[in-house]
Amino acid sequence: MATFIPTLEVAILNVRAAACDEFEAALLEASGIIASMPGYISHELRRCVQVSNRYILLVQWRCLEDHTVGFRQSPDYQRWRTLLHHFYDPFPTVEHYGPSLLDRAV
Amino acid sequence: MATFIPTLEVAILNVRAAACDEFEAALLEASGIIASMPGYISHELRRCVQVSNRYILLVQWRCLEDHTVGFRQSPDYQRWRTLLHHFYDPFPTVEHYGPSLLDRAV
Repeated sequence: MATFIPTLEVAILNVRAAACDEFEAALLEASGIIASMPGYISHELRRCVQVSNRYILLVQWRCLEDHTVGFRQSPDYQRWRTLLHHFYDPFPTVEHYGPSLLDRAV
Repeated sequence: MATFIPTLEVAILNVRAAACDEFEAALLEASGIIASMPGYISHELRRCVQVSNRYILLVQWRCLEDHTVGFRQSPDYQRWRTLLHHFYDPFPTVEHYGPSLLDRAV
């Protein structure tokens, strides 16, 4: 049986000034795309308190490859790109993080 | 009645090379400090897949000031600093993010 390592995708998104409302609507529309992918668990978008045109996108995946292979090589990824990528300046670096290390902590 | 805006503290932590095991143990020890603060909800520490000495610390607070005032001005914060700050290189920038914008999305 395959073992999956739960993975958190983290993207800090700097959105072109004056396009924030439009970006939030586009992300809401695009949410259905990512949520339909195999291995998708959940996602959230939050707006930065200190920098008003900055957001964080956090996506929980069953494993790394569900994002890097399954999603990015899916036909639907083209629609995600079309909806969202033109908002970013600069284009973001996406990182992945492993499972929580503190489950025994509190 | 006061209205609290749920806030996510986000810190990308670059830890001195070769000190990762020690850092993880220190964070586990320090977890009791942050978890005892008024307005603390939860926290998690995850290790980066792409950069092995990088971590993300995510802390859910009842509101921004529970972190920026309550925690940082508490006597216990000095112990948190002593336990953890010497691991960071460079010293991290901490950001705060507001509530999830996508609760209606999926």
